[in-house]
Amino acid sequence: MTASLAESREQRDCRFMAAAIRYSRRHLGLTGTNPSVATLIVAEQGGQPVIVGRGVTALGGRPHAETQALEEAGEKARGATAYVTLEPCAHHGKTPPCAEALIRAGIARVVGAADDPDPRVAGRGYAMLREAGIEVVSGVLAEEARQVLSGYLIRSEKKRTEVTLKLALSADGKIGRQGRGQVQITGEIASRQVHMMRAEADAILIGIRTALNDDPALTCRLPGLEHRSPARIVLDRHLRLPLNSTLVSSARRVPLYLTIASDCPVARREAYAEAGVQFIAIDSVDNDVALPELVEDLAAKGFTKLLVEGGAYTASAFLNDGLVDRICLFVAPIRLGEGEEAVVAPVTPESIPQGFRLIRRERYGEDDYFEYVRED
Amino acid sequence: MTASLAESREQRDCRFMAAAIRYSRRHLGLTGTNPSVATLIVAEQGGQPVIVGRGVTALGGRPHAETQALEEAGEKARGATAYVTLEPCAHHGKTPPCAEALIRAGIARVVGAADDPDPRVAGRGYAMLREAGIEVVSGVLAEEARQVLSGYLIRSEKKRTEVTLKLALSADGKIGRQGRGQVQITGEIASRQVHMMRAEADAILIGIRTALNDDPALTCRLPGLEHRSPARIVLDRHLRLPLNSTLVSSARRVPLYLTIASDCPVARREAYAEAGVQFIAIDSVDNDVALPELVEDLAAKGFTKLLVEGGAYTASAFLNDGLVDRICLFVAPIRLGEGEEAVVAPVTPESIPQGFRLIRRERYGEDDYFEYVRED
Repeated sequence: MTASLAESREQRDCRFMAAAIRYSRRHLGLTGTNPSVATLIVAEQGGQPVIVGRGVTALGGRPHAETQALEEAGEKARGATAYVTLEPCAHHGKTPPCAEALIRAGIARVVGAADDPDPRVAGRGYAMLREAGIEVVSGVLAEEARQVLSGYLIRSEKKRTEVTLKLALSADGKIGRQGRGQVQITGEIASRQVHMMRAEADAILIGIRTALNDDPALTCRLPGLEHRSPARIVLDRHLRLPLNSTLVSSARRVPLYLTIASDCPVARREAYAEAGVQFIAIDSVDNDVALPELVEDLAAKGFTKLLVEGGAYTASAFLNDGLVDRICLFVAPIRLGEGEEAVVAPVTPESIPQGFRLIRRERYGEDDYFEYVRED
Repeated sequence: MTASLAESREQRDCRFMAAAIRYSRRHLGLTGTNPSVATLIVAEQGGQPVIVGRGVTALGGRPHAETQALEEAGEKARGATAYVTLEPCAHHGKTPPCAEALIRAGIARVVGAADDPDPRVAGRGYAMLREAGIEVVSGVLAEEARQVLSGYLIRSEKKRTEVTLKLALSADGKIGRQGRGQVQITGEIASRQVHMMRAEADAILIGIRTALNDDPALTCRLPGLEHRSPARIVLDRHLRLPLNSTLVSSARRVPLYLTIASDCPVARREAYAEAGVQFIAIDSVDNDVALPELVEDLAAKGFTKLLVEGGAYTASAFLNDGLVDRICLFVAPIRLGEGEEAVVAPVTPESIPQGFRLIRRERYGEDDYFEYVRED
């Protein structure tokens, strides 16, 4: 007896939607301003549901997932079920909207996960399908799909980038030692997780103190995924980052943005521009970067997922401004002790701000991992 | 008797607003996703209106014009009149919205030109000022201000870049000769105007045929404004642009984007990426780039003003898709003749599509200039 004989329609829908959501992760961070969405076309063959077409938003964001899945399915799409992790788009350009493409292909049933908040879609995608006589079931594993689409959804709804705060801390709640450069707190397996997070982000951000102390590269160094390094952003109002730093030296290979104040002399910028560095203009308040304005401008430039990697000062600033959507904590079994030079973590599993909910807990080698999302 | 003795308040408002609008052009193409706006603070001194503070949106888009003008005016802002080319912003970030900054500074009267369609502002900026007891006159020279702000306004309202089509044609309506490379049709003075248009744009776009025929640089080569070259975009679905072309060779200095189809082999892209070329993913329809999707994606990436410089095929495609907002024609006194190789202009002053209105007519040396905007 195969599993599917005893499987209800709801169970089957969950099973294929879970597969579609896993598949949709594939191009996270690689689809520009379009969301990384997946579509599976499932047809009955010999009494069994079989995947006959699949698509994930193409690199750079086009074509959309539906187009590709329908192309692979061809004639097999007729009478089949389409699993879509996001409501199909409903607005016309030169290409037909995905909702129309599903109708034209003869799809009989559409199972959707997340709704699309884009005002040009927002319910209209599902409405178009229903008007064409297609059975629509929406909201299947919606929460799981929304986690993958969180950057796109937050950019659409809040007009700013999604902010994920990542910190590695010791068991006694420290993130490093003052002036000692980069301290490896967590193990190799946790490090690889961080590099995967980088691959899925559009940009990594750190403060100038961390850049000066650690001289980091902030690239994705997973074998085979080196090309997936996102843009690096350093909060550096007065251009203190050295021209021979690892970040500036690699600016031709992986984009580097420095956020500079308007009174930063144009002449000083030239050598950085020569090295391939790009600039982001910022407002300053009390000698600090105005972060709400920055994340709004980053979204307008097309960045959806921002990974804040520290240090303590920068992490606290994002937390205090209420801009953090997701907190990812790696906690190592080591202790850094109470010495004056120990840098206290701005947030630990014991001091998660109100309004956050634990959604994942994992073990990576010797290290614990906690992931929290904001509830609103 | 000085002019201002006989000047009515309406005349004075027009005079200072005209000055503000001219000033607001200064940073066109240099303010990222924020509009290039100007503010003048005018106070009575010895019975005469005197400019005591001025500001234009800073390079990169921040700080806003109002902040800078108020800072220059200091205490002189109290009881003064502020001329703003766009409704002051009303939404809070870390910095106070500009409407609030004007209130705090003690401004007595605000004269505004264009309204802001951004849903976070849209009338709320003026409402905040009125609630604080400030006299507000809006809509002064609104049409003139909207011309400078057209890229920002179209991106806000239509969620796509503004498209300006520029063509240089001969008196007999030709734009060049087939396969003869770049033909200089208009004179030196008209050329300088084109370079100024480039400086004010966020990106220049041409088709692959023109790129192959002409091997152009598409940079701004006005003395002193070389750094204002915008990004160059070539519609090149199959990567036909040679690696040794002028465009690719200069990609490290001035950004170059190629719009490529999803089936363009990843391996072929590598040499271009090495040269600093960036890619834009597109949808294809009938073996052509889907332009409505492209201008939507460009807007989402932060581009507001796109200058389409040809050739005939690409210009026709933008016209046929109803995507052209502004047509700029330079007409030279020369004739290219009727030979088979003459390329007919897709649009001439005699064949302007319905719905366009002539808003400027100039003479540049021997050449005539016509500028039309779409009415809707």
